[in-house]
Amino acid sequence: MQLGLVGLGRMGGNMRERLRAAGHEVIGYDNQAELSDVASLAEMAKKLDAPRAVWVMVPAAVTDETITKLAEVLDTGDIIVDGGNSRFSDDAPRAERLNERGIGYVDAGVSGGVWGRQNGYALMVGGAKEHVDRLMPIFEALKPAGEFGFVHAGPVGAGHYAKMVHNGVEYGLMHAYAEGYELLAKSELVTDVPGVFKSWREGTVVRSWLLDLLDRALDEDPKLAELSPYTEDTGEGRWTVDEAVRLAVPMNVIAAALFARFASRQDDSPAMKAVAALRQQFGGHAVRKR
Amino acid sequence: MQLGLVGLGRMGGNMRERLRAAGHEVIGYDNQAELSDVASLAEMAKKLDAPRAVWVMVPAAVTDETITKLAEVLDTGDIIVDGGNSRFSDDAPRAERLNERGIGYVDAGVSGGVWGRQNGYALMVGGAKEHVDRLMPIFEALKPAGEFGFVHAGPVGAGHYAKMVHNGVEYGLMHAYAEGYELLAKSELVTDVPGVFKSWREGTVVRSWLLDLLDRALDEDPKLAELSPYTEDTGEGRWTVDEAVRLAVPMNVIAAALFARFASRQDDSPAMKAVAALRQQFGGHAVRKR
Amino acid sequence: MQLGLVGLGRMGGNMRERLRAAGHEVIGYDNQAELSDVASLAEMAKKLDAPRAVWVMVPAAVTDETITKLAEVLDTGDIIVDGGNSRFSDDAPRAERLNERGIGYVDAGVSGGVWGRQNGYALMVGGAKEHVDRLMPIFEALKPAGEFGFVHAGPVGAGHYAKMVHNGVEYGLMHAYAEGYELLAKSELVTDVPGVFKSWREGTVVRSWLLDLLDRALDEDPKLAELSPYTEDTGEGRWTVDEAVRLAVPMNVIAAALFARFASRQDDSPAMKAVAALRQQFGGHAVRKR
Amino acid sequence: MQLGLVGLGRMGGNMRERLRAAGHEVIGYDNQAELSDVASLAEMAKKLDAPRAVWVMVPAAVTDETITKLAEVLDTGDIIVDGGNSRFSDDAPRAERLNERGIGYVDAGVSGGVWGRQNGYALMVGGAKEHVDRLMPIFEALKPAGEFGFVHAGPVGAGHYAKMVHNGVEYGLMHAYAEGYELLAKSELVTDVPGVFKSWREGTVVRSWLLDLLDRALDEDPKLAELSPYTEDTGEGRWTVDEAVRLAVPMNVIAAALFARFASRQDDSPAMKAVAALRQQFGGHAVRKR
Repeated sequence: MQLGLVGLGRMGGNMRERLRAAGHEVIGYDNQAELSDVASLAEMAKKLDAPRAVWVMVPAAVTDETITKLAEVLDTGDIIVDGGNSRFSDDAPRAERLNERGIGYVDAGVSGGVWGRQNGYALMVGGAKEHVDRLMPIFEALKPAGEFGFVHAGPVGAGHYAKMVHNGVEYGLMHAYAEGYELLAKSELVTDVPGVFKSWREGTVVRSWLLDLLDRALDEDPKLAELSPYTEDTGEGRWTVDEAVRLAVPMNVIAAALFARFASRQDDSPAMKAVAALRQQFGGHAVRKR
Repeated sequence: MQLGLVGLGRMGGNMRERLRAAGHEVIGYDNQAELSDVASLAEMAKKLDAPRAVWVMVPAAVTDETITKLAEVLDTGDIIVDGGNSRFSDDAPRAERLNERGIGYVDAGVSGGVWGRQNGYALMVGGAKEHVDRLMPIFEALKPAGEFGFVHAGPVGAGHYAKMVHNGVEYGLMHAYAEGYELLAKSELVTDVPGVFKSWREGTVVRSWLLDLLDRALDEDPKLAELSPYTEDTGEGRWTVDEAVRLAVPMNVIAAALFARFASRQDDSPAMKAVAALRQQFGGHAVRKR
Repeated sequence: MQLGLVGLGRMGGNMRERLRAAGHEVIGYDNQAELSDVASLAEMAKKLDAPRAVWVMVPAAVTDETITKLAEVLDTGDIIVDGGNSRFSDDAPRAERLNERGIGYVDAGVSGGVWGRQNGYALMVGGAKEHVDRLMPIFEALKPAGEFGFVHAGPVGAGHYAKMVHNGVEYGLMHAYAEGYELLAKSELVTDVPGVFKSWREGTVVRSWLLDLLDRALDEDPKLAELSPYTEDTGEGRWTVDEAVRLAVPMNVIAAALFARFASRQDDSPAMKAVAALRQQFGGHAVRKR
Repeated sequence: MQLGLVGLGRMGGNMRERLRAAGHEVIGYDNQAELSDVASLAEMAKKLDAPRAVWVMVPAAVTDETITKLAEVLDTGDIIVDGGNSRFSDDAPRAERLNERGIGYVDAGVSGGVWGRQNGYALMVGGAKEHVDRLMPIFEALKPAGEFGFVHAGPVGAGHYAKMVHNGVEYGLMHAYAEGYELLAKSELVTDVPGVFKSWREGTVVRSWLLDLLDRALDEDPKLAELSPYTEDTGEGRWTVDEAVRLAVPMNVIAAALFARFASRQDDSPAMKAVAALRQQFGGHAVRKR
């Protein structure tokens, strides 16, 4: 089928390739002319037969303005899919605004990163059944082969919600391996730490794709000597904890993984300075001056 | 090669099958006569050509007494492998005691559970190179096919250490998925929670064997309605946290997963009763009487 | 000075008493006629000389509507103080709305609970210096005697912010004592748990007002046998964690205390059921059926 | 009464003063001759009338050897008190060894730090009733005036146990304040952070001696600019978490406070490097090279 695709960066560009390889006609638009198939959103819209489907794959910060501009060149009966990392709570208001113009809206959480073009992109989508049904050929082409890698999770917002939780879980998983790594690295007994991770890749309870990646990383740099502990977070981890707080879900593991990222970016911990100050006051404990 | 195998329960029995299928000659001994190939440890020893190798696969609580009895029927040059869930700190003293009789000792952390017979058992072993080398044909037969699933992690104790950390990581991984499950289950938006887990099985960052199992569990019981939250812990999680405390490793994630198991077994939280008592005292907050 | 006081419940009623005892003229209004000094907000306004100061002390859920009604009977130059448990982020919009009518706004976090009438109420206020200065006689009368118990923490919102953090810290403190209580209660060695808490009340690092209260509670019920662990949370703890997430502050302790309250209210932990399900799948571990 | 006192450092020296001020006869011994009242343990023993009581106040690392030497100069019927920071689990074996020589043993957890001489030392003691009774005049002199600050917590070991939990609770309390400090310091709204802490000192739920000390520290250095976050831990926090693990007590708060101290001493977090390595592998996320 035909698809408009707005945003042809690393993710969008690879998705275009995968869709075309599956026989779909993709008209891609990007601000950067050298990536773009057309000169404007209007031209893109003109090249698509109504009712149109347009997938937006731009950074979360510019999603709303992109969709606003896009809606101006679309018509009643068209559908917009947001495949970016939007916060789920932005989806319903966005769907309502589009609905006033007769345009449908589907939110799609997309996982797969740099590996997606080859392996397929896992898709978690939210929206009305009729909209999702119309888009199924596109979802089928993007998703990994086989029975997994796709869910229609619920109404508008449910796709980004499921992707948010996916990323929250990812934080927890990564940090569990990371704590295990640190303990092994500090152990006096274990002399082959990378070998231990390699041994875990088959036959164990902890085998996973993340473990495979950690093994690869240790192959390249067995003591991770080239890396800084400084680690960003991309929003979904925070939203996951916010939701846990809102819904009264005890979430010690994922929150701890998130907090560890925060701490990794501090040169100086104000909290620990307060602890040091207290120890100095009550015990005359030696503290380090800066 | 020949191997004595002491303990023919669920794990030991399956290992005997896998070893025999690989062409090894296994003389198994178990307290339960109907499982045993021989009538006594002495008979087992007699049937093995020196230098012997004997694998002990019994519950941790009886490992020491089993090894003591076994050593009495072995000779200088023989090797004992402990494949049970011993605490790593028991390995060095045990090796020393056996060493006084000229008997070698290798510790082997074994992962694989009920799936191991078919998929192979991941093995993390500790001991002297010469002992490990002699046992390699056995390790090769037990481990999964391919390059993964085995490590000689270091000297005596390193095998059980690596297995302990494996289990600690396992606690963290399981709880990360579990928190994600709870949030999805409470969300007002996500209407197909099992579908979300199914979608994660391909193309995502969180795909793993544990995720596959959780999907299976949700296939069988989509709301986990048949299960109690009461969850045991088997020692390795506690030892992992103990080691983190000893080696000054911040281990918030794995510790939180362990503490959550503790809490799952409490009918009544004394700590929360203390919190309730305080709220009643300072605020006249309504509290629940029993 | 004169003060209008809206809301004469447990907190507001006691504050009226404390203010009158300090010589201030308080005109109180409450929906419940038997508590009220006047029949309406309009009558209250009429009895106060301009420029007026009116303190609103109502549940957070009805603060906005109360202030809206109140503003209708006030004039340019008057000041409204919100002493309730508003979320700090509601203060700036509220101040702006009032500012359009020439009415000043001050937010006041109030601590003290049922003990405040006697000991004084600690006050954390936010607002413009001129507004705070005009209200100082009231603050002086409400606060505890001496140099502590009052701060002008910053512009509008800073008072409720400081109170929010106060409550977040309170969660952490309470839970630290609570964990200590549980460990002592489980210890095989300590035979006089209430005695230990009593011993801590003087000369120790952990002495505090909360500790005094816990000692009182243990005097009344040495094993806390009469209490349920079920514990509510009142909003400020959640907002504190939300702010930590927004500002990238690692907040493991306060978050853990909050999550423990969430858990205390669950009959059944969905997360632990997921853990139990996983254990059943991979290990054939015995799990409890409901 | 008479008391031998071994160890006249900061703690022991001040305790000697407090005891003498209360009218007791103290014969102090210390390795450092200029602090010591006598030239040897033997001379100390000779100057005390039987049955003797000797208080040992030396670093935990040398307590066992000190007690062994001391026991050689004592007789049946004498009592040794260990007032140092021994691990509770060392007490019972020590008591048994002394018991073989007819010497009694009492363990005393002592709190009070540099403030104890003036305010009194809180005492948590473990031992046989007859031994504790004989020492009561000494305990009375050391403890703070009034009904608090002393407990006979149980048999031998219970005193150090109670003190261990005291210190674990202390870790949690300190970190709760510290997290509150960090959030206030990062808030855009609160302009007077030290003022907020000062306001909390009266009339609030969080008032405590630790809060008073934090206020003092902020008076001296309002931004804690002179301090490093590097913070030691002294053993009791670790033992508390070890005990929680042993006794299956969920202890998220105190463990988090302990782990934060561990993290404060790391130049580089191996765990976070593992997280960074994973992000680099799966997402091509920019990571910082060292």
